[in-house]
Amino acid sequence: MEHLQPLSYLNVDITGGFWAAAQKRNRDVTIPAVRDRFEETGRFKAFDFTWKEGADEPEPHFFWDSDVAKWIESAAYELAKAPDEALQALVERVIDRIEAHMEPDGYFNIWHTVVQPGSRFQNQDRHELYCLGHLLEAAVAYYEATGRDRFLNTMDRYVELVYRTFVEEKSAAFDVPGHEEIELALYRAWRARPRELYKELANYFIDKRGTDPKALGGWCHPLYCQNHIPVRSQREAVGHCVRACYLYSGMADYAAVNGDEEMLAACRDLFEDVTRRKMYVTGGIGSTHRGEAFTIPYDLPNASAYTETCASIALAMFANRMLVIDPDSRYADVTETEIYNGILSGLSLDGEAFFYENPLEIDLQMRKRDVSTTDAPRWPITQRQKCFWCSCCPPNLTRFIASLSGCAISVGEKDVYLHQFMPLRAETDGLTLTVETNYPVDGDVRVRVLGGAGKRLKVRLPGWCRHYTADRAHTVDRGYLTFDVPGDDCAFEIGFDLTPCFITADPRVAEDVGKVAVRRGPVVYCAEAVDTDASLALVRADTAETPRVIPDDGTYGVPTLVMKACVIAPDDDAPLYSADPAVRTTPAELPLIPYFAFANRGETDMRVWLTKA
Amino acid sequence: MEHLQPLSYLNVDITGGFWAAAQKRNRDVTIPAVRDRFEETGRFKAFDFTWKEGADEPEPHFFWDSDVAKWIESAAYELAKAPDEALQALVERVIDRIEAHMEPDGYFNIWHTVVQPGSRFQNQDRHELYCLGHLLEAAVAYYEATGRDRFLNTMDRYVELVYRTFVEEKSAAFDVPGHEEIELALYRAWRARPRELYKELANYFIDKRGTDPKALGGWCHPLYCQNHIPVRSQREAVGHCVRACYLYSGMADYAAVNGDEEMLAACRDLFEDVTRRKMYVTGGIGSTHRGEAFTIPYDLPNASAYTETCASIALAMFANRMLVIDPDSRYADVTETEIYNGILSGLSLDGEAFFYENPLEIDLQMRKRDVSTTDAPRWPITQRQKCFWCSCCPPNLTRFIASLSGCAISVGEKDVYLHQFMPLRAETDGLTLTVETNYPVDGDVRVRVLGGAGKRLKVRLPGWCRHYTADRAHTVDRGYLTFDVPGDDCAFEIGFDLTPCFITADPRVAEDVGKVAVRRGPVVYCAEAVDTDASLALVRADTAETPRVIPDDGTYGVPTLVMKACVIAPDDDAPLYSADPAVRTTPAELPLIPYFAFANRGETDMRVWLTKA
Repeated sequence: MEHLQPLSYLNVDITGGFWAAAQKRNRDVTIPAVRDRFEETGRFKAFDFTWKEGADEPEPHFFWDSDVAKWIESAAYELAKAPDEALQALVERVIDRIEAHMEPDGYFNIWHTVVQPGSRFQNQDRHELYCLGHLLEAAVAYYEATGRDRFLNTMDRYVELVYRTFVEEKSAAFDVPGHEEIELALYRAWRARPRELYKELANYFIDKRGTDPKALGGWCHPLYCQNHIPVRSQREAVGHCVRACYLYSGMADYAAVNGDEEMLAACRDLFEDVTRRKMYVTGGIGSTHRGEAFTIPYDLPNASAYTETCASIALAMFANRMLVIDPDSRYADVTETEIYNGILSGLSLDGEAFFYENPLEIDLQMRKRDVSTTDAPRWPITQRQKCFWCSCCPPNLTRFIASLSGCAISVGEKDVYLHQFMPLRAETDGLTLTVETNYPVDGDVRVRVLGGAGKRLKVRLPGWCRHYTADRAHTVDRGYLTFDVPGDDCAFEIGFDLTPCFITADPRVAEDVGKVAVRRGPVVYCAEAVDTDASLALVRADTAETPRVIPDDGTYGVPTLVMKACVIAPDDDAPLYSADPAVRTTPAELPLIPYFAFANRGETDMRVWLTKA
Repeated sequence: MEHLQPLSYLNVDITGGFWAAAQKRNRDVTIPAVRDRFEETGRFKAFDFTWKEGADEPEPHFFWDSDVAKWIESAAYELAKAPDEALQALVERVIDRIEAHMEPDGYFNIWHTVVQPGSRFQNQDRHELYCLGHLLEAAVAYYEATGRDRFLNTMDRYVELVYRTFVEEKSAAFDVPGHEEIELALYRAWRARPRELYKELANYFIDKRGTDPKALGGWCHPLYCQNHIPVRSQREAVGHCVRACYLYSGMADYAAVNGDEEMLAACRDLFEDVTRRKMYVTGGIGSTHRGEAFTIPYDLPNASAYTETCASIALAMFANRMLVIDPDSRYADVTETEIYNGILSGLSLDGEAFFYENPLEIDLQMRKRDVSTTDAPRWPITQRQKCFWCSCCPPNLTRFIASLSGCAISVGEKDVYLHQFMPLRAETDGLTLTVETNYPVDGDVRVRVLGGAGKRLKVRLPGWCRHYTADRAHTVDRGYLTFDVPGDDCAFEIGFDLTPCFITADPRVAEDVGKVAVRRGPVVYCAEAVDTDASLALVRADTAETPRVIPDDGTYGVPTLVMKACVIAPDDDAPLYSADPAVRTTPAELPLIPYFAFANRGETDMRVWLTKA
C-alpha cells in the first residue's frame, strides 16, 4: 500500500485566481454570515445550557453542537492564516462554555442534557457521536491553527468516556453511531496528536459496524446507516450518502493507519460503485430525498436529485483519503468535479445563501403536477436559503473552502504530486513548490520546484482532458504526468485543452438517454430559462458545433458559453400522438452558465442535460 | 346541436370475431369470477344487513353497494341476450334484500346503515350518491333487459328521497356528491322511463357543482372532485380521473337533454384537454396515483402511470356521449383506443384477473431504488389480481364488455353512423345493418344496409389510418366516409391499411422524447422482457424498417409483431460520463405483443415506448 503524505492547508497557500477569490469571500462574507444565522437561531446561545421547557428560546436540536463545531473549524482555518482577535474571542467563548457544561465524567451534548436529560447513549440515531466527531475535528483544527490545546484536551475527556462506555463497559443501547463522523475525526486527532486511544476507538467503531445489524431506536434502517453487513464486506454504496461517505472516509483512514489491504479493497470497490454508477455529472450523489440516499446503479433522476452539498463534500473527503493510499488520478478527478460543481453549487455567488440539495434540473411548471391533492410529492427547493432547519451544509462549505489547499498536493518518498490546479505556494521538508495558473479560465499551468533534485513531479492529467501539452519529457503513470526533477530549480509548463465538449452518460442512465451535458475543463455548465425565450424542454442541442466561449465579465470567475441549438415550436393543433409528426424548429443560441452558479438570478427553470437535436 | 340516437346494445348484436370471443369469455368466465370473488369477500352477504361490530364477517365498505350494482348491470346485459335462471335468481335475491332493507323514507346504503348508522348524507366523500347512481344504472339495465320494473321502482323511492333532501330541504351536509356518477345515471333513467324528477335532479347536481367550492368532510380537495368552479367554466380536466369523466359524461348528457350549447362548449374543451394533452397513447388517463388524478399538460410518466381501468372506461363513456351531440370521428377514435388498449389491458387473457392500474412501463429493478428507507414510493402492481380492496374495475369491465355493441352505431334523421368495426347485425326502424369483418386482424370491412334507400351511411375513417380504399364514391365529413345509400339493399366495401407504424408523441411529452411506440391499426403494442435476452432499457428501435406481422396463433386474437432493433452492450469499464463514448451495439429482433395482453406471462419488464436507435 502506498503512503503519501497530503500537505495540510497549513503548508499550502492559495496565492491568487479563482480560489483565492472564493476563500476571500468565505472569510469576509460566508463565515460571518453563518455565524450571524447561528446566533439568530440560538445555536451559539444553546452552549449556555440555559434552555428550559416552555422558554422563549428555540429548542436546541440534537445536531446543533455539530453546526457550531463546523463553524469553529472554519474559524480555526482562518486564524491559522491571519490573526483575528474578535474571531478568536468568540471561539474561546464557546470553548469556555463547553468546558463549563461538560459533565464531570466527560459527557457533552446540549440536547441530551438540557432538552432530554437522562437519554444519553440510548438512541443510535440521535447524533451524539456525530456531534463529538465534529467537536473533535474543530478542536484538532484549533489546536493545529493556534497551538492552543485546551479545546482538544477537553474533548479528550469525552473521547475517554466514549471509549469506556462503548468499548470497555458496552453499556450504551447501541454499538455504533447511526451517523458516522467520529471515526474519521478520531483518525484525524490521532494524526495531529497521536494517542492510541483515538486509533483504538476509531478502529473499534469501524470493525464493529454491521456485525449486529439490529438498529436500535430512531428510524435507522440498517442499510440507511451502512450497518447491514461488516464494512469489509460492503461493496455497494447504500443508504444516506453523507453517512456513507463519512464512513468510507473513516475506512480509508483505517486502511492507511492499519495498513489493511482488505479494507483498501472494500474502499476501492465502494469508490467505484459510487463514481461509476451512482454519481451525477456534477459530482452530486443521492438520487432520492427518501433517506437522502443512494438508490440503484444508474438511477440518476435530474429534477428530483437530492445531491446534498454535504454529500459532495463527503465524497471529496473520501476521494482525498483514497489518493493517499492508492495514488490514482481518478480520485483527484472526483475531487475536482466536486469543488467546481457539486460542492460549489451549494453556495450563492454573493456568499450568503445556500442550497442543501443541488438538483440538475428545475422545471417550475412540473411542480404544479399534483395540485388536486394534499399529499403532493417533495421537490428540491429552487431558491437559496440563508439558513436551514438542518443547517449542516453552510458550515461544511465554510470549512471545506477555508482548508481547500489541503487537497492540492501530496508527497511520497520520491514523488511530489500536484492534484489540483490553482496558484499555490507550498513548502515541505526543504522543498518549495509554486504553481502559477489562471486555471480553469485557461489551461496553462506552470510549476516550479525548488530543492527537488532527484524527485519526481507528478501532475494530474485530468480525466476530462482530451489534449494537453508539456514542455518536458514525461511518462503517464496512473493518470499523472510524471516528470523527473533534474535540479534544484526546475520549471514545468503544462497546457490542458479546455475546449468545451459535449458529455454523454452511460446508456444505462435512463434519464440522460438522448441528452448531452456541456463541460469545459472541470466546469459543468447549465442552461437557465432566464437566458432564453424558449422552454428548456423544447431546446435541442446542436452537438455538431462546439459551444462558443464568452470571457467572464467578473460574474462567475470562469467563462460562460453559447451553444447552438434549435427550438421546437409546439403545435397545439397537432395530435398528441402521430405516425407522421411534423415538427417545426427554429435555430437558437442558448447561453450556458457554470452549473455552480445556478439559481442566482431568481427562480427559473434550469437544465444540465439537454436533449440532442 | 346534432342529436344522434345511439343504438343500444339491445339493438346491436356482435356476431363474431374478436369481440364475440371477448363477450363469450366475459359471460362464461369473468362475470361468474367477479360474482365468486364478491361472494367470497362478503359483498353479496352485506346486502343481508347482518354485519355487526366485532362480527366475523368483513366490515362492508361504503362503496360495496356499487360493486354489486355494476355486477348486476353486467348480469342484466347477459339476461337480455339469453335467459339464465340461476343468474336471474341471484339478481332477484339482491333486489329482494334491497327492498327489504330500504328504510321507510327510501334511503338505502349498507355502510351508512349497518357500520355507521346515523351518518347519512354527512360526508361528501362517502359515496352514497355514487352508490345510488350505480344501483340506478343497474335497475335501468335490468328493466330494459327483462321488462321487470320492481328494482327501478324501488330505486325511485331513493331518488325521491335524494330530491327532497338535496333540492327541496337542502338538509344534507354537502351540496353535490364527492364522486360523480348519479348525474349520468339519472339521465340514463330519464331516457329509459321519462320522469321529470330524474332530469331535474341530474340538472340540479350538475348546475350546483362548483358554486360552493367548500368540500365538506373527507379529504375531498375541490379540484380533486371537480368542485372548484361551476362546470360551464371548467375548461381544464382536473382531479380524480374517474370522477372527472363521469362528471363530463353527465355534462354531455345535460347538454343533449337540455340543448345547452354552453355546456357542449365546456364538454368539447374538456375532451380536448384530456385527449390532446393528458392521455397516454393507450388511452390511459391519470398521470399520478396521488388522487388518481390528472396532472399538468404533457406530464405522462410511463412507469408510474396510474391509468386506472375505470378511468379508461369513463373516458370512453364520455366520448360516446359526445358523439351524439357533436358527431366527429375523434370521439369514436378515443373509444376505439380505449377498447383495444387502456380498457382491455385491465383484464387478463384468461378473463379471471385484473389490473386496476395500467402502467406503460414496468422496470422491476427500478422498484428496488428506495431499499434503504421505510417510506418507499408506490409503484403500480405488476401482477394481475382476482379482486381488489377497492374492486371497482372488474365489474366495470364486465358491464362495459357485455354492452360494448352499444357504442358501434348511431343514427340521425338521415344518417347511419358506423363508429366501431366488428361483425354486427343491427336493426332499427325498418333498417337493417350488417357488418362483416375480421377487424382488427385485417382492415376489410363490408357493410350491408337493408331498407336504407335515401339515407347516408357514415363510416368512421380512423384517425390512425394513413391509407384506405372504398368501393363507392364518398366524401369525408368530420372524419366519416360518407356514402349515399342508393337503394334498399346496398353493400359497401372499405379497406383500412393496417401496416404497423411507429408513433411519436408531442415533443412536450418529456417522457417520450426520442422514443417511439408501435401501433397496428387501433392496437398499441409493447415489448416484454420475457421475449428477449436484452434489457429493454438498452434496446434501440430501428424505425427504418416496418415491424413484421406474425399471424396470431390463437393467443391474442390479433397478430404479434417483430421489430428490428439494436441492443447496446453495457460497458462496465467505461466511464459514467464521457465526451467520446464508444457504444457497441448488436442487432436484434424484438417481439412485440398487444399492450392489452401485458403481464400475462408472469412478472416481467415491459415497455410501450422504446428508445429510437
